[in-house]
Amino acid sequence: MSFLELHTPGAPLLMPNAWDAGSAKLFQSLGFKAIATTSSGHAATLGRLDGRVSRDEALEHCAALVAATDLPVSADLEDGFATDPAGVAETVRLAAEAGLAGCSIEDFGGGEIYDAGRATERVAAAVEAAHSGSRRLVLTARCENHIRGRDDLDDTIARLRSYQEAGADVLYAPGPRTADAIGAIVAALDRPVNVLALPGVPPVAELAALGVARVSVGGAFAFAALGAAAEAAAELRDSGTYGFWERAGAGARAARESFGP
Amino acid sequence: MSFLELHTPGAPLLMPNAWDAGSAKLFQSLGFKAIATTSSGHAATLGRLDGRVSRDEALEHCAALVAATDLPVSADLEDGFATDPAGVAETVRLAAEAGLAGCSIEDFGGGEIYDAGRATERVAAAVEAAHSGSRRLVLTARCENHIRGRDDLDDTIARLRSYQEAGADVLYAPGPRTADAIGAIVAALDRPVNVLALPGVPPVAELAALGVARVSVGGAFAFAALGAAAEAAAELRDSGTYGFWERAGAGARAARESFGP
Repeated sequence: MSFLELHTPGAPLLMPNAWDAGSAKLFQSLGFKAIATTSSGHAATLGRLDGRVSRDEALEHCAALVAATDLPVSADLEDGFATDPAGVAETVRLAAEAGLAGCSIEDFGGGEIYDAGRATERVAAAVEAAHSGSRRLVLTARCENHIRGRDDLDDTIARLRSYQEAGADVLYAPGPRTADAIGAIVAALDRPVNVLALPGVPPVAELAALGVARVSVGGAFAFAALGAAAEAAAELRDSGTYGFWERAGAGARAARESFGP
Repeated sequence: MSFLELHTPGAPLLMPNAWDAGSAKLFQSLGFKAIATTSSGHAATLGRLDGRVSRDEALEHCAALVAATDLPVSADLEDGFATDPAGVAETVRLAAEAGLAGCSIEDFGGGEIYDAGRATERVAAAVEAAHSGSRRLVLTARCENHIRGRDDLDDTIARLRSYQEAGADVLYAPGPRTADAIGAIVAALDRPVNVLALPGVPPVAELAALGVARVSVGGAFAFAALGAAAEAAAELRDSGTYGFWERAGAGARAARESFGP
């Protein structure tokens, strides 16, 4: 089954976001069928905030995750590391060379949300690159409105329809949390829709009933890991005790099952 | 204060083991005064079991952690990636070039515990390299008996004394958990002793009373992080819910405090 075929409205593909080769192998071992990258989680491994990773670094990271797992990998390529459509297309071509099964392109870059026309031109260029090579990539077009302070569902839906008409394979607007909003997005489109599993979003079973085709978590698993590390370190620092080994033991067992021979 | 001066018997240096640049910055932000690497935790980021990382990969990783933090970094260099003393010395020279403040060399390699004479020659060569360059490294000599199935405290103490006579700056035998065993090791030596904070080891306050000078955690924080990721992913897979965001939110806040601007 191709990566695109795994996108089933009503039976969403659960696509965890890995931040290094080890977490990608872990998620494969846990039975997931596809892996995403996360720009914020990857940046965190480098000790940087989101948005401070170069295209070369992102693509090298993607290639490492592709090499680590047998599963399709879809990359969070932020704004395509370019403002102009040709630059976005070049990034998508390089993504195909890195062995990715898919990638996402956002409509926010350089500190602003692109106007809808420009954003659609960027999606069209990305689609052209994604579909014309010897490896056909699944191109996800992202509308960043709701996580960039523009909580305008009508505009979001209009943009996603425009990105669909430009040929995007999957549509994605991180941020909306209510069943009404998510249902309205799904109903307005006839391509698979990805939902970001934020706090307050309906659980997966309800998303399935709404017709959602894919669920991802952004940086959540990466930051859950970092949060556990902070908890463990604070225990050592503040109490001088080692209760962190309970979770560490489980993690070490999971690693043996995921990495071993 | 130099890295060596941070080793205070009775007031142990807490040295968390980082596995990437982000975790190193996190631990600096949490107030620790030195950072260690962990061979098992680093291997896990690459999706590999411990012992499957090359010398070049380990040294590149060390340089990345040195660049990420202002703190002294001490590297877990396993068996020195060599059997012969000259090879161990070359690894220590390269460790100094990577900007490390210290490193550890184990007496287990190639599937066996080296006999005490050979192990001491290896330590002597490591010490010579650690102390003769323009950057003086703190050389930790490790006795692997207790984590390699030889639970012989007398032999451990004899080895650590021999490594001390060969010039090691810090002595370390991971594995012993009782106050009696740890106290006997400290009492037999007159150099700083590192203890691995395993489950069942006395808490830091008691280690301090025993005269321990440094406490590290091996791969525990790395695997606590991976364990939390596995918990989070299993929640998504099995329950379709997003309770993982509580820890993820704390992790994201810690990241902003550690990495920003």
